[in-house]
Amino acid sequence: MNKKVIVYLLGQVLKIEAALMILPIIMAIIFGEVEGLSFFIVSVLCFVIGFIFTVKKPTNFTFYLKEGCITTALSWILLSIFGSLPFVLNGDIPNFTNALFETVSGFTTTGASILDDVEALSNCSTLWRSFTHWIGGMGVLVFLLAIIPLSGGSNINLMRAESPGPSVGKLVPKIKYTAQLLYIIYFALTVIEVVLLLLGGAPFIDALNTSFGTAGTGGFGIKNDSIGGYNAYIQWVVTIFMILFGVNFNAYYFILLKKWKKTLAMEEIRWYFIIIITSVTIICTQTYTKAAGFFTTLRHSSFQVASIMTTTGFSTVDFDQWNQTAKTVLVMLMFIGACAGSTGGGIKVSRFIITVKTIFKELHSYIHPKSIKKINIDSKPIEHDVLRSTNVYFITFIMMFSLSVFLISFEGKDLTTNFTAIAATINNIGPGLNMVGPTKNFAHFSAFSKYVMMFDMLLGRLELFPMLILFHPSVIKELFFSGKHKKTI
Amino acid sequence: MNKKVIVYLLGQVLKIEAALMILPIIMAIIFGEVEGLSFFIVSVLCFVIGFIFTVKKPTNFTFYLKEGCITTALSWILLSIFGSLPFVLNGDIPNFTNALFETVSGFTTTGASILDDVEALSNCSTLWRSFTHWIGGMGVLVFLLAIIPLSGGSNINLMRAESPGPSVGKLVPKIKYTAQLLYIIYFALTVIEVVLLLLGGAPFIDALNTSFGTAGTGGFGIKNDSIGGYNAYIQWVVTIFMILFGVNFNAYYFILLKKWKKTLAMEEIRWYFIIIITSVTIICTQTYTKAAGFFTTLRHSSFQVASIMTTTGFSTVDFDQWNQTAKTVLVMLMFIGACAGSTGGGIKVSRFIITVKTIFKELHSYIHPKSIKKINIDSKPIEHDVLRSTNVYFITFIMMFSLSVFLISFEGKDLTTNFTAIAATINNIGPGLNMVGPTKNFAHFSAFSKYVMMFDMLLGRLELFPMLILFHPSVIKELFFSGKHKKTI
Repeated sequence: MNKKVIVYLLGQVLKIEAALMILPIIMAIIFGEVEGLSFFIVSVLCFVIGFIFTVKKPTNFTFYLKEGCITTALSWILLSIFGSLPFVLNGDIPNFTNALFETVSGFTTTGASILDDVEALSNCSTLWRSFTHWIGGMGVLVFLLAIIPLSGGSNINLMRAESPGPSVGKLVPKIKYTAQLLYIIYFALTVIEVVLLLLGGAPFIDALNTSFGTAGTGGFGIKNDSIGGYNAYIQWVVTIFMILFGVNFNAYYFILLKKWKKTLAMEEIRWYFIIIITSVTIICTQTYTKAAGFFTTLRHSSFQVASIMTTTGFSTVDFDQWNQTAKTVLVMLMFIGACAGSTGGGIKVSRFIITVKTIFKELHSYIHPKSIKKINIDSKPIEHDVLRSTNVYFITFIMMFSLSVFLISFEGKDLTTNFTAIAATINNIGPGLNMVGPTKNFAHFSAFSKYVMMFDMLLGRLELFPMLILFHPSVIKELFFSGKHKKTI
Repeated sequence: MNKKVIVYLLGQVLKIEAALMILPIIMAIIFGEVEGLSFFIVSVLCFVIGFIFTVKKPTNFTFYLKEGCITTALSWILLSIFGSLPFVLNGDIPNFTNALFETVSGFTTTGASILDDVEALSNCSTLWRSFTHWIGGMGVLVFLLAIIPLSGGSNINLMRAESPGPSVGKLVPKIKYTAQLLYIIYFALTVIEVVLLLLGGAPFIDALNTSFGTAGTGGFGIKNDSIGGYNAYIQWVVTIFMILFGVNFNAYYFILLKKWKKTLAMEEIRWYFIIIITSVTIICTQTYTKAAGFFTTLRHSSFQVASIMTTTGFSTVDFDQWNQTAKTVLVMLMFIGACAGSTGGGIKVSRFIITVKTIFKELHSYIHPKSIKKINIDSKPIEHDVLRSTNVYFITFIMMFSLSVFLISFEGKDLTTNFTAIAATINNIGPGLNMVGPTKNFAHFSAFSKYVMMFDMLLGRLELFPMLILFHPSVIKELFFSGKHKKTI
């Protein structure tokens, strides 16, 4: 294993985190908040450790998928640990487990909170909390790839480990430019949302925080009623941008190149919109009341569907009070998730398309045993390897999901709470139903359950395998117990 | 499609059903019950229709997996429809949908009931109800194969469509003798259970009905408190026999041949017992009370674990009152199910073994990309086709499960009820939690939801694909809309 390059990359990640903390520090200076000091201390700490890790640049930058997975998993864990320290130091979230939960939830764009009163946070902590969503949405390693030249083709392994979806498409031949392009689109869309929210009368801080939460499909609200207190215009803007950030970013690239036909031919996006429209229609019929009227019902239905399907987790109403059909639709959307190649979580629309097509192919093979049918997406045949890995992803997901529900069931909470708490964390959504509904939070869980859910949030954000590989016995052994001398034997 | 052979086989199935109804008729004569008349009428009806269907023996007996699936699905549907008629005619279950639900639940060995008071049934109806479990446990088509000589190797397609598990093993080279052997083992085990129950002081009718319900892993109780009212000895006998009927029948064949090593080497059976023992241990610790004492706790824990894991569905206590951890263990056991090649339902232990091994293989391929690792079971490598079909089975199961939960959610019942109602029917168990708990029944669902669950029971018992193929548009078109003239064009 190329440990040197892993350490070097982790050091770079810490240096980036040090730089990112400048934003909350500026906020603290503007508002004259003493809480900002903790960000300064941790920023310096990150920089020093990052500097030590990167002082010696490795000569050999070759690494494989295994190293890519390990680097990704470790860097997300490190980011979260250091990212949580300011909350502990400045007393906004004094308990370390809670602070870590909040930070993991932030970086993984989950948005599940342990805070009873989010409005009690200092402005700098609130900004950092929302900013972690924005950072986690696109990923730090993708950012690293955009700025640091890594040699050879081995950096695709890093991108493969961090990016969501069954297969990573390089937009342009060079990974570096692909990563830059993704960040440019991401940044531009965020800025547009901020401007549109400002036009709707939102205060600048609200617009910034909310846009961070939307862009990363995170969902940390800065008000106790999430987005419920804002006007209808703002709620519609957030709805539309949640949907936009759940779209496969390749589409924006095609749009930039004015390849309209190619954009419209993307099967995943077509199904993404079909599912949204169908769900909104069902929920509208289920939640309509004469008192609310059609347009308010439509607004709340659209908002909640967009929020859950893109795995953002904002809310404008307490959907836990909705009827069973509406809630079941939301629970199903939790698992479907957004498009691959977006900032959203969940199993992803494309995996469901592949899965449903696999089932139909199987039925077809029973009926016509001798015919060989290929599965196509966007009129191109899918490689056997992608099919296999999609199936394996699915069954691994189900296994980890069931195991997690089992582990947290020891607390004695009801099945709906346990089931939706895991669904909301492993799919990076945020709120669930019952005791983890949109007006509740995750503080009531034991530390053990919180760590299970933190693991699940990382599992979901990194698409299962990087985390599982990091905790694979042979990898742990190699990482911590094998010296260099073994290699020479 | 070879429609002639399908019709011929369906006719044979109906003739068998006519013969099987003699048992409740005898019971009615013994007890002088007028309700027995309805069985006589339906038996004659089945025989007449069966006779018409089989009067012309087809010359060409060749048929493929498609015909095997269609025959299987249609014969189970026909069996259920005709099997439900006596209940309607004699007024024991006057509503047709309810009678059909009860009969589908019987044949598929589910044991989910719509009856408020099972003790109000006539003796002949009770016996027929339990007898459907016994018939459905091993399968009517397997019985057909055991008595009717079908030409060529095409009858394996019939067996493949009806038998549970990822791959069908022929015990002996000839399907006919394999089928006979299975029925002999099945019959012998049932007789032993009846004798042991009689020794424990159970009345003959109770012993017979309970043994039918155990053998088929069905679970219709003949008392309103299921097995709760019987003595501890009887409860232990039922526990042990439920476990025995959940074992892969190949094991008994090996035991008969005194191939002890081969029996002990069966990985599926090892895991089956490991899961049972682990679950019993967890549930014992969770449900132990000083008042009940260790042995009573052990008895109830073992009974409920055996009942749910083998998908029988008997109960000795109201496990819906247990704590959340114990209930979560039961819900997980619902999905795991019994061994392949047993009379039990669920996804099957062997599929889980294959699935877990597939996940580890995937992790291994990330860590050692160049190595090729084969998945072994019982020290033999699994064919790629079995792996693929297991994965496809899993994802198809999840999809059908989710769709069903969605469809019944329109009634507005809570998530736990809907989730466990579908889990209990698609896995052929019987009781679930909350409104479908062991002291409740399924009568409160709408007719629509009942048909969804009937479909799911058949889906589960026939291992998904026969039912899905029967309802595949191209098959429906071929079955009902294509005349003979098309073939000559």
